[in-house]
Amino acid sequence: MRAYNFNAGPSMLPEEVLRRARDELLNWHGSGLSVLEMSHRGRFFPKIAQQAEADLRELMAIPAEYRVLFLQGGATSQFAMVPMNLLRGKRKASYILTGEWSKKAAEEAAQFCQLHVAGTSEKDHYTSVPAPETWQIDPDSAYLHITTNETINGVEYQFTPDVEGMPLVADMSSNILSRPIDVSQYGLIYAGAQKNLGIAGITLVIVRDDLLGRVVPGTPTMYQYHQHVKQHSMLNTPPTFAWYMLGLMCDWLKRQGGIPAVAERNRHKAEKLYACLDGSGFYHNGIRKDCRSRMNVVFTMKKPELEEEFLETARTEGLIGLKGHRAVGGLRASLYNAMPEEGVDALITFLRNFEHLRG
Amino acid sequence: MRAYNFNAGPSMLPEEVLRRARDELLNWHGSGLSVLEMSHRGRFFPKIAQQAEADLRELMAIPAEYRVLFLQGGATSQFAMVPMNLLRGKRKASYILTGEWSKKAAEEAAQFCQLHVAGTSEKDHYTSVPAPETWQIDPDSAYLHITTNETINGVEYQFTPDVEGMPLVADMSSNILSRPIDVSQYGLIYAGAQKNLGIAGITLVIVRDDLLGRVVPGTPTMYQYHQHVKQHSMLNTPPTFAWYMLGLMCDWLKRQGGIPAVAERNRHKAEKLYACLDGSGFYHNGIRKDCRSRMNVVFTMKKPELEEEFLETARTEGLIGLKGHRAVGGLRASLYNAMPEEGVDALITFLRNFEHLRG
Repeated sequence: MRAYNFNAGPSMLPEEVLRRARDELLNWHGSGLSVLEMSHRGRFFPKIAQQAEADLRELMAIPAEYRVLFLQGGATSQFAMVPMNLLRGKRKASYILTGEWSKKAAEEAAQFCQLHVAGTSEKDHYTSVPAPETWQIDPDSAYLHITTNETINGVEYQFTPDVEGMPLVADMSSNILSRPIDVSQYGLIYAGAQKNLGIAGITLVIVRDDLLGRVVPGTPTMYQYHQHVKQHSMLNTPPTFAWYMLGLMCDWLKRQGGIPAVAERNRHKAEKLYACLDGSGFYHNGIRKDCRSRMNVVFTMKKPELEEEFLETARTEGLIGLKGHRAVGGLRASLYNAMPEEGVDALITFLRNFEHLRG
Repeated sequence: MRAYNFNAGPSMLPEEVLRRARDELLNWHGSGLSVLEMSHRGRFFPKIAQQAEADLRELMAIPAEYRVLFLQGGATSQFAMVPMNLLRGKRKASYILTGEWSKKAAEEAAQFCQLHVAGTSEKDHYTSVPAPETWQIDPDSAYLHITTNETINGVEYQFTPDVEGMPLVADMSSNILSRPIDVSQYGLIYAGAQKNLGIAGITLVIVRDDLLGRVVPGTPTMYQYHQHVKQHSMLNTPPTFAWYMLGLMCDWLKRQGGIPAVAERNRHKAEKLYACLDGSGFYHNGIRKDCRSRMNVVFTMKKPELEEEFLETARTEGLIGLKGHRAVGGLRASLYNAMPEEGVDALITFLRNFEHLRG
């Protein structure tokens, strides 16, 4: 039996997508080849790659002046690539700190520029997004960086900041494709794929092309966006299978009704789970209500000493990956696009039963 | 029907490995999860990762003082990472040029150090490895870099250079695991996986640990080997599925009798094909005999205008990927570990028939 997998990433995939990958694995569309063996410059793979990009562009309504890159190295590589490519002669960059991932992004950027913290929710232990009217963006900044969903802290932006001409850069690793966004409000968006885009090993970058072409001296070739643009993300051998899986995910998402339909389901799933937590005296979510993540629901128990028992019992009932990130502890349920409502219902039933027995 | 895939990479995989990946794809060993969905820090994936490393260490007899890293970005990323990590305060590095890939490695290194070309076969159009007694290694070099097999040019080292204390760095992307080597003669070995190690999206680095810890200023965190060492290649989410496939390949290789047995088969496959080319007046391989690659057999036809027809006819007979690299043209048959002898026999029969009909 398949488990409900609440891991934060790599994470659950739709069973339909897995079945298709399996059925095609030995011989893709009668080609005599597995996708795993295909030359990226052969007859078949370029079609797979182009279709994935076309579907993604359609799903996100990506404007023509934006390039879409399929890279390696995860969002952590982007923490360096963003300043190395987007400083463009400037010395400063502004960052909003809302949790572990934005802090990491800012620390790495500080190696390449003068880091300006324009806003932070450190004082409330990263349980909110600081109100934009309190942000102090340095006007000499090359860009403003935000992390639209903090996977570890369970905090999510419910708005898109207006930065008046300054490029807005967003790490959307854990909420891309989960709700509609207007790409034209951003200069650059990046996302590791192992949450809503498929599997680990491929990183999506969507970047407005006028921002490209000027890099910090000493930037490795593979860290230069414009080099990847020139070669359509085939500057060297791309992670072909992860690209294919990203394509299958986009195709699945289209058949689910696209982002608006999925966003509605995500809203509903998260509301249900938060209502259950809020209605109990046993579980607790400490995130400010208007900043709660729909993707990563963090919570604690009144009796933290029962966490191990909770996790073990959940596991035996087919609910896995509920442990919080080691940086913050506690518990966490990630509800990406692939998590069906039945999974959330099963979790809620389990939460109630566990509270009833051990609360 | 499955094709014989002579592509240079991504390339053919053993059918047995593909079947196993397929059979396990929806539910790995009763875990209720696909490997594609597993958290890299969960209960199962660390075992997969550790087993892959253990099997690789056993196959290559990797000494204890060497670290094994599973990275992203392909060999092209290593072209920068090697100087950024191994210069260690020195300014120069020596490179031996034997074809397209060693030239690319040297060009990238020149961004970070004073490049010293210690030997080159440019004069004979990269159809040989320059004799080591003619090499002029700069003694102030931080390391000497070689490319043990030139995938595009079809040239392979049949010896390991003795560099007396200077770290020897080798790009083994296209011949790793194809023949026995003595790891202790190298300071660092790197290889993209999409030839003999599995699928695209993971890059192997084997490095002696005393070489690590000092990087060029401005080196991104993800380009620092010692950071990956500290986190056992889980500095961020690794390319989990590609790592798993690398493990399946190592397991398969062990069951083939290990590297000595596979090397003997590789020698035999390549000899057969070269004998066929040499025995014909129609096909030609211009590589010096003692430098011919066992992995990538490049050749031309007396009537180059027939190349398209050759490729198309071969394709209809299930022999694919025989086009030479666009940088050098002509034809090429890659005979990695996964290419069975029957594939080579089928190619030889085809070569003879085509010559008979159109020669």
